[in-house]
Amino acid sequence: MKGVILGIAPDARLVDISHEIAPQNLRQASYVLYTAYPFFPPHTVHLIVVDPGVGSARRPIALRTPVGTFVAPDNGVLSYVMAREQVEAVVELSDPRYRLPQVSHTFHGRDIFAPAAAHLAAGVPITALGPPVDDPVTFPPPRLEVAPDAISGEVLHADHFGNVITSIGQLAWKGNELSLEPAFEKGDRGHSARLNAGAARVAVAGHEIGGVRRTYAETARGETLALVGSEGHLEIAVREGSAAQRLGLRPGDEVILRL
Amino acid sequence: MKGVILGIAPDARLVDISHEIAPQNLRQASYVLYTAYPFFPPHTVHLIVVDPGVGSARRPIALRTPVGTFVAPDNGVLSYVMAREQVEAVVELSDPRYRLPQVSHTFHGRDIFAPAAAHLAAGVPITALGPPVDDPVTFPPPRLEVAPDAISGEVLHADHFGNVITSIGQLAWKGNELSLEPAFEKGDRGHSARLNAGAARVAVAGHEIGGVRRTYAETARGETLALVGSEGHLEIAVREGSAAQRLGLRPGDEVILRL
Amino acid sequence: MKGVILGIAPDARLVDISHEIAPQNLRQASYVLYTAYPFFPPHTVHLIVVDPGVGSARRPIALRTPVGTFVAPDNGVLSYVMAREQVEAVVELSDPRYRLPQVSHTFHGRDIFAPAAAHLAAGVPITALGPPVDDPVTFPPPRLEVAPDAISGEVLHADHFGNVITSIGQLAWKGNELSLEPAFEKGDRGHSARLNAGAARVAVAGHEIGGVRRTYAETARGETLALVGSEGHLEIAVREGSAAQRLGLRPGDEVILRL
Repeated sequence: MKGVILGIAPDARLVDISHEIAPQNLRQASYVLYTAYPFFPPHTVHLIVVDPGVGSARRPIALRTPVGTFVAPDNGVLSYVMAREQVEAVVELSDPRYRLPQVSHTFHGRDIFAPAAAHLAAGVPITALGPPVDDPVTFPPPRLEVAPDAISGEVLHADHFGNVITSIGQLAWKGNELSLEPAFEKGDRGHSARLNAGAARVAVAGHEIGGVRRTYAETARGETLALVGSEGHLEIAVREGSAAQRLGLRPGDEVILRL
Repeated sequence: MKGVILGIAPDARLVDISHEIAPQNLRQASYVLYTAYPFFPPHTVHLIVVDPGVGSARRPIALRTPVGTFVAPDNGVLSYVMAREQVEAVVELSDPRYRLPQVSHTFHGRDIFAPAAAHLAAGVPITALGPPVDDPVTFPPPRLEVAPDAISGEVLHADHFGNVITSIGQLAWKGNELSLEPAFEKGDRGHSARLNAGAARVAVAGHEIGGVRRTYAETARGETLALVGSEGHLEIAVREGSAAQRLGLRPGDEVILRL
Repeated sequence: MKGVILGIAPDARLVDISHEIAPQNLRQASYVLYTAYPFFPPHTVHLIVVDPGVGSARRPIALRTPVGTFVAPDNGVLSYVMAREQVEAVVELSDPRYRLPQVSHTFHGRDIFAPAAAHLAAGVPITALGPPVDDPVTFPPPRLEVAPDAISGEVLHADHFGNVITSIGQLAWKGNELSLEPAFEKGDRGHSARLNAGAARVAVAGHEIGGVRRTYAETARGETLALVGSEGHLEIAVREGSAAQRLGLRPGDEVILRL
């Protein structure tokens, strides 16, 4: 893929975000993308190839937003981006001029996605790549319910340290309070909340974790804790250990922040 | 190695292809190289350091072809490149001006190969690096026998998904037929064949796999299948699983495509 | 982190050294840094984020030396650099102009260290980043004792091949002798020694290993050997195997080179 890109766009800067996505895990891929893209310049072309349907009729697409352009299979992996950002254009990557001459059935990353990303980086307008797509595939946003006495959500996935990421976010510390701005909504994200962090208690899949800590350093080695992770999501962790293993947590498990 | 290269050729673009080759596995390294180099621009310098003989008398070499320049130990890892491409020059990397001042016994990647690749990228002609090599080490091409009723070959290796790559290639779909152009020959590759894909049946190490599918999407999750991989080689796979594990396949195991 | 860097310093060259440091292993991180930084140009900014104390009061710092600039947590990970090189400046990364606007409690790599490294690469002088630090955290150098009849040291860590690196270094071959220049000292490193390599015998954690070999190629596959590694340190290895596993070696285990 990198050879193809550099052949088309010799000045492109290539940055690897992750080759550690569990095979075919669209939810994890979506989340990792969501944690990374806001930190890149808006002229960045983001290329995502997690593609269980390669070779089937699923469409290859490109998406333009004010904060970045995205090239991916049309399988929902761009759901969080579309939920959060203004969608300026979505097109199907069908024009053969922007594919390799020979397209395999099994490696569209190299034969379709990489050439499209390279041509976009080299200045080809997105609308040249193919016709508009009106109905891109998206999956529903992760569960996040805000009630007067509790915020409930779900386990999204575990990172490679074994820290468990949940859908309760984005949280930010304001003094001794936490503010919540629901993560997967567009614009001003009006349904914000403020909570007394000292009184809050976290439970996940039946395990009581206690309050929300600010840092790992507040706990002893080996202790289980809840804290606000680097992307503003409630995380369950074990200091210098794996929360995913210790608590046996799985995607979809319920997590509750009692106020 | 990257620090050494950037010290010599500050404008060089560095692209990592793989750090996942099983230790000392020259066959796997050769194959990964074979799948990648044709997609890079011809001015690319390819640097391969899989080097079980580091510190012994094996020579360090550079190879120039019309489609790329290659720097590697003289241990056969360039066999597939030499079998397929026009060899314009092979030299031994003996000139101390193009090595680090101090050469260790154990890390020629840093002390010999990286400086040579950097000097080549910076424009030093290959013939300046050392004297010609007339007898580079090559290993015999993988088994591939074409008979009227069957094509037979061998298992090459498994990739990190557990997909098993075989020597039967390069295959390409032409409508409902498959064309075969033997992979490890130069020039027009005259021994091509055409086969009726619908009637073909695959067997590997005694396991009957069935016909050749076009894509993973044609099968159910967990099913074993044969298909034409992204480099045009017959592969044995399990959809969202590991064929290498399920069938216990090893390099050298016989694979047969019955017509 | 890479998005943040490229937003601040668009022309920066990004080189990944390692993402394979065992979680929180400051000693291993220090050693890997020590093996890499001398091979990079002196204008390089080295960014190290192995940070068990993230979110605690540990300071973020930058260090300037004649051979490179270093950005890291103040947790000792720069100990070997400070022991070997001239320290021109150490500052605390406290100026908010050189951090992201919002600093999380859990990902200072992205919010503090990456912006500081990018601003340094873009030409901001180190003294602009914050006030001087007079007492950076360092850990004591690894054990290395030179006596007339033996040199003794300790196991530092194992690399991902299972080769065991020791503190006995830096050794270099001079004909049939080995010279020793203690690794973790500044300047001319006056306590050098010369030893008759033919007569030397290595023992580690009670296992007798035999003499010091020049290369893996001097031994049979599967044999345990001692040799001088690529950074000039005495290593214990198994040819095409793992010495760490076979001998059950742990950091701190005693290693002796009997003369």
